[in-house]
Amino acid sequence: MSSPIIPKTQKAIVFEENNGKLEYKDVPVPIPKPNEILIHVRYSGVCHTDLHAWKGDWPLPTKLPLVGGHEGAGEVVAIGSNVKNWKVGDLAGIKWLNGSCMSCEFCENSNESNCAQADLSGYTHDGSFQQYATADAVQAARIPPGTNLAEVAPILCAGVTVYKALKSAELKAGEWVAISGAAGGLGSLAVQFARAMGLRVLGIDGGPGKEELFQSLGGECFIDFTKESDIVDAVIRATNGGAHGVINVSVSDSAISASTRYVRSCGTCVLVGMPAGAICKSEVFDQVVRSTKIVGSYVGNRADTREALDFFARGLVRAPIKVVGLSTLPEIFEKMEKGLIAGRYVVDTSK
Amino acid sequence: MSSPIIPKTQKAIVFEENNGKLEYKDVPVPIPKPNEILIHVRYSGVCHTDLHAWKGDWPLPTKLPLVGGHEGAGEVVAIGSNVKNWKVGDLAGIKWLNGSCMSCEFCENSNESNCAQADLSGYTHDGSFQQYATADAVQAARIPPGTNLAEVAPILCAGVTVYKALKSAELKAGEWVAISGAAGGLGSLAVQFARAMGLRVLGIDGGPGKEELFQSLGGECFIDFTKESDIVDAVIRATNGGAHGVINVSVSDSAISASTRYVRSCGTCVLVGMPAGAICKSEVFDQVVRSTKIVGSYVGNRADTREALDFFARGLVRAPIKVVGLSTLPEIFEKMEKGLIAGRYVVDTSK
Amino acid sequence: MSSPIIPKTQKAIVFEENNGKLEYKDVPVPIPKPNEILIHVRYSGVCHTDLHAWKGDWPLPTKLPLVGGHEGAGEVVAIGSNVKNWKVGDLAGIKWLNGSCMSCEFCENSNESNCAQADLSGYTHDGSFQQYATADAVQAARIPPGTNLAEVAPILCAGVTVYKALKSAELKAGEWVAISGAAGGLGSLAVQFARAMGLRVLGIDGGPGKEELFQSLGGECFIDFTKESDIVDAVIRATNGGAHGVINVSVSDSAISASTRYVRSCGTCVLVGMPAGAICKSEVFDQVVRSTKIVGSYVGNRADTREALDFFARGLVRAPIKVVGLSTLPEIFEKMEKGLIAGRYVVDTSK
Amino acid sequence: MSSPIIPKTQKAIVFEENNGKLEYKDVPVPIPKPNEILIHVRYSGVCHTDLHAWKGDWPLPTKLPLVGGHEGAGEVVAIGSNVKNWKVGDLAGIKWLNGSCMSCEFCENSNESNCAQADLSGYTHDGSFQQYATADAVQAARIPPGTNLAEVAPILCAGVTVYKALKSAELKAGEWVAISGAAGGLGSLAVQFARAMGLRVLGIDGGPGKEELFQSLGGECFIDFTKESDIVDAVIRATNGGAHGVINVSVSDSAISASTRYVRSCGTCVLVGMPAGAICKSEVFDQVVRSTKIVGSYVGNRADTREALDFFARGLVRAPIKVVGLSTLPEIFEKMEKGLIAGRYVVDTSK
Repeated sequence: MSSPIIPKTQKAIVFEENNGKLEYKDVPVPIPKPNEILIHVRYSGVCHTDLHAWKGDWPLPTKLPLVGGHEGAGEVVAIGSNVKNWKVGDLAGIKWLNGSCMSCEFCENSNESNCAQADLSGYTHDGSFQQYATADAVQAARIPPGTNLAEVAPILCAGVTVYKALKSAELKAGEWVAISGAAGGLGSLAVQFARAMGLRVLGIDGGPGKEELFQSLGGECFIDFTKESDIVDAVIRATNGGAHGVINVSVSDSAISASTRYVRSCGTCVLVGMPAGAICKSEVFDQVVRSTKIVGSYVGNRADTREALDFFARGLVRAPIKVVGLSTLPEIFEKMEKGLIAGRYVVDTSK
Repeated sequence: MSSPIIPKTQKAIVFEENNGKLEYKDVPVPIPKPNEILIHVRYSGVCHTDLHAWKGDWPLPTKLPLVGGHEGAGEVVAIGSNVKNWKVGDLAGIKWLNGSCMSCEFCENSNESNCAQADLSGYTHDGSFQQYATADAVQAARIPPGTNLAEVAPILCAGVTVYKALKSAELKAGEWVAISGAAGGLGSLAVQFARAMGLRVLGIDGGPGKEELFQSLGGECFIDFTKESDIVDAVIRATNGGAHGVINVSVSDSAISASTRYVRSCGTCVLVGMPAGAICKSEVFDQVVRSTKIVGSYVGNRADTREALDFFARGLVRAPIKVVGLSTLPEIFEKMEKGLIAGRYVVDTSK
Repeated sequence: MSSPIIPKTQKAIVFEENNGKLEYKDVPVPIPKPNEILIHVRYSGVCHTDLHAWKGDWPLPTKLPLVGGHEGAGEVVAIGSNVKNWKVGDLAGIKWLNGSCMSCEFCENSNESNCAQADLSGYTHDGSFQQYATADAVQAARIPPGTNLAEVAPILCAGVTVYKALKSAELKAGEWVAISGAAGGLGSLAVQFARAMGLRVLGIDGGPGKEELFQSLGGECFIDFTKESDIVDAVIRATNGGAHGVINVSVSDSAISASTRYVRSCGTCVLVGMPAGAICKSEVFDQVVRSTKIVGSYVGNRADTREALDFFARGLVRAPIKVVGLSTLPEIFEKMEKGLIAGRYVVDTSK
Repeated sequence: MSSPIIPKTQKAIVFEENNGKLEYKDVPVPIPKPNEILIHVRYSGVCHTDLHAWKGDWPLPTKLPLVGGHEGAGEVVAIGSNVKNWKVGDLAGIKWLNGSCMSCEFCENSNESNCAQADLSGYTHDGSFQQYATADAVQAARIPPGTNLAEVAPILCAGVTVYKALKSAELKAGEWVAISGAAGGLGSLAVQFARAMGLRVLGIDGGPGKEELFQSLGGECFIDFTKESDIVDAVIRATNGGAHGVINVSVSDSAISASTRYVRSCGTCVLVGMPAGAICKSEVFDQVVRSTKIVGSYVGNRADTREALDFFARGLVRAPIKVVGLSTLPEIFEKMEKGLIAGRYVVDTSK
């Protein structure tokens, strides 16, 4: 393949300080290090995490100035001198974990996201809200040829994250999984992955149209929190004893704590959404006597990413997306902050 | 073996209502049902749970009137008509789980203690603070011939419980386990089991003589909470990154919540002590990003019991006990309530 | 419910010695022991194991004279004096494991089928080729009300066995399972369970109509051993590196050994069919370097049975059956010996 | 640290073809690639695998000409341009897995030794029978400062390999592990690791002095195959039902097949030794009914290596070594071929 022409400058959304102005402007195209690849990002999903990065309300500082974004899909346009596993023209994805030390006990055990030196796209490393971005060659996601790059973008973080959360629940096919926040962006992906894994899916969410969406995705039983006064009891009745697993993508403290009560004895509550400052509270007596687990699940590793992309490639999961220009990102953030987004926004970096 | 002579009445400690008078008096010897055995209890350990049963401060009502106790060791003196796996003269133990339905999903998977119909010795079923007690033939613990019955008593609940908690932490030999409350009754057993499982043991406790006791049991690193201002930091430093597992036998809310912070990334905090009303609080952001687990561990099942007794039989664990007469139980409860007990009291039912 | 009238005698197929005459005759209705239930068997599946029991060609002696059969479905008509978990009128199933000691290390860990005192229906305990049969109350299978008893019969052994084999392969949804003998009685059930568990299914079998059957059940990729010269290579190519798991329900030594070569590195070959005298051969160098596993999977336990019946109840698996009278069993055995059976025969005990 | 002076040439043992002359001669010092480090090898263990590499009797071709050896311990003297996790002066080890692709499904899941592009020290990459050797920076083993380099050498392959095999057996502390070949080089390390993991160790070996050696290492029960006529029965009696796990480091086909019979029901036989051309034979009926597993275990990954080195560093395992000059390697191979070696030879590369 002949080498693509790589420009010197490109468009990006940049902010100089947390909560500062989001500027759509020209910035230099980055040069890949020996272990990196340069990806021409065509589309990027917009995740709640990008909002946290901009606001700076998590207890982990961001790089500044920063180009956010960590759900970027595009093609490889250049490779570092020491890269052997990629070639120019391959489709590749930017994901949350951009790179890690590969030497610590976490990296050794494929838990690279827990590495103390983890380099995070759109947080500690300029991300996918630009036309050209760099990624560590080991961590960049391999996207199969022929994939629709706009549709695959949200799989790279949202999809992988809920898939990993479902794996963390250690469920068997035929068991019940409750998804708290089932009709949102993460939740609707979780419903589809859960179905593809042979699980029975109970969804909790509220508001008009949510139940219909849930059922169209293959969900079996829906509980509308705007109509049901006792969620804990309702889940226990619907699942004949409690859900074997719970995926908490909802961003409410009280919903999280409720999940510790409607999870089945010997079952697992997975924490995966990260509302700023949230605390999970569990009654010790109940948790001991019912032998339940509360587990934190972070982003997926390379294998989780490959597997989640395979479910997508086989047509088993789809994220309803809305494609807009990169330059409109400030408006998306505004809507997101107001909780006005259903589904997933994807930005086209060429606009 | 000729059948032993079984009296019609016996001595027991009985209370008519929660927090009511603890009477040492004559009661009828119970008659085993077809699936039960009758055990001549020689010795019984005294557990914190017995105090909770008497006070009635757990959200699970007790049988009333009640004979407490669930760490009884003695010999089989009669068997029900349908019992095939015991014979008169066998040594047998009364443990917390007296019997269960054997038909529900929990019983099917050997999690009988999570059975909704679990029958609990000294709580919903008269226990071991009497000379003769009944136990379900399937659940009664098999004690090897020649065992010292006074010494084995505390293994039947305290020993099995901490052993199960250690199993629930899913650790590998060579990893660090932190035991919060390491020098108490449960803690000192946990230290010994942990050592026998090849773990490196860090103990947290406070007060004179505690460190010496801890080290005499094989503990490697001791943190005295009366001397150390920042326990979380101290554990992380001592274990080079946090303990891979934590066993919470301490009865303090704040100690439990601290354990969620000094557990290593990807590690497991086990809840096992059950202070009345306690809440475990965990920061969602931290738990997700560090992918930690908080798991409730209740009493062991039949296999856990057999295994824990085998560690005892091979001389790898010892509970420091103080043997007194059954009639003195009220005084033991008094001391226990005041936190004045180090080690384990065992009552001799003949006195 | 008023008690049903239980006759003194009934029809059964009995043989006095292995390979001896199969007599359809009147025998006494058995009386349940205190821990047993009496089931009015309406239908019974006919399994290859029944043929082994009659021929006596396995290294485990049968009871003699014997009433075979271990896939019986009917209703409870009487319960032993010590039975609490059943009532007259419940639907119940006779399965291979009729009862076990409930006291050994295998029973303690829910592996009752590995109990040295396992009592086997239609092998060491008179089975379901009669109108009334006894079963241990703990082990008898609970069949949901309203179930079609003829259709559920083969699930009780064939269905549970392949489901357990699939669990023993420890696969994740999205991975490849190869089923050797995919179009036979066990194989066609395995294909359906595998699909319901989210697995990708490759089938190996041969002969006309097999591929169509396989695909109608949800199989993805079929390899016809009558057309493909190199099965090992064909499986490796079709699965892009070998199947993550293999279920060996084929009864050929060479097919079993081939499966050790086409299983993916780090994957698992499950042995579940038991051809008399068969040996599994594996090259040590290959097995070490590729870190593969060969695991024996026997019949399911109580939880496996409940779970498999739940897949059936939810309509996810169906066994194509042919219902004939119990009296025709000798002819079924003859066909089975000649390898002329596709699908599963079910006998109606009333004829 | 000032950079060490690296010579242009060095001493090495080289062979031009399999089974060809082993020449002790001057060769160029290799230059590390960007992702490699250069290690000044001080000592190297001599492993049976080195003999296979020289003879070329495994179904995997070696590089030719070849410098063998894969248990090298020394210090880092140079680092490639892209290496971040090492610095000159660090102690480092050469192990069997020199490098891998880091991109395939096996590498993603920390099973780098199963990578199809695995680069093997002393096999496909010049190894530790020279004074200066290169190793991939990700895979090279980190040796703690102050370690005795001669003593640690055999841990790098023999130690890690048996430790990984013990992990592959998935045993709990308190269970029985049988080690077939317990008094040899690998076996005597396996006994010590097993003890440190809390296992009960039964050893099988034969000949004078073997039982004494076994017991001095902490073994509990020894079976001498030169004295015991029925090994299977002897193991089953000694362990009260069979060993929960078996580690096959013996190089005999019949010993391996016997291990499938004396393993306990539900237990695991681990294949780890690789005699050329060996076949493991298992009776299908027995393996199914007893639900046993036969698993291949190859070399350890980075985490296994770190963990095994930690057991060594804490003084829990020791390999009895005999240090000789590198130039004497041909004589060691001769003795090894004749089966005359007890314990482990370590070569000093300076002689």
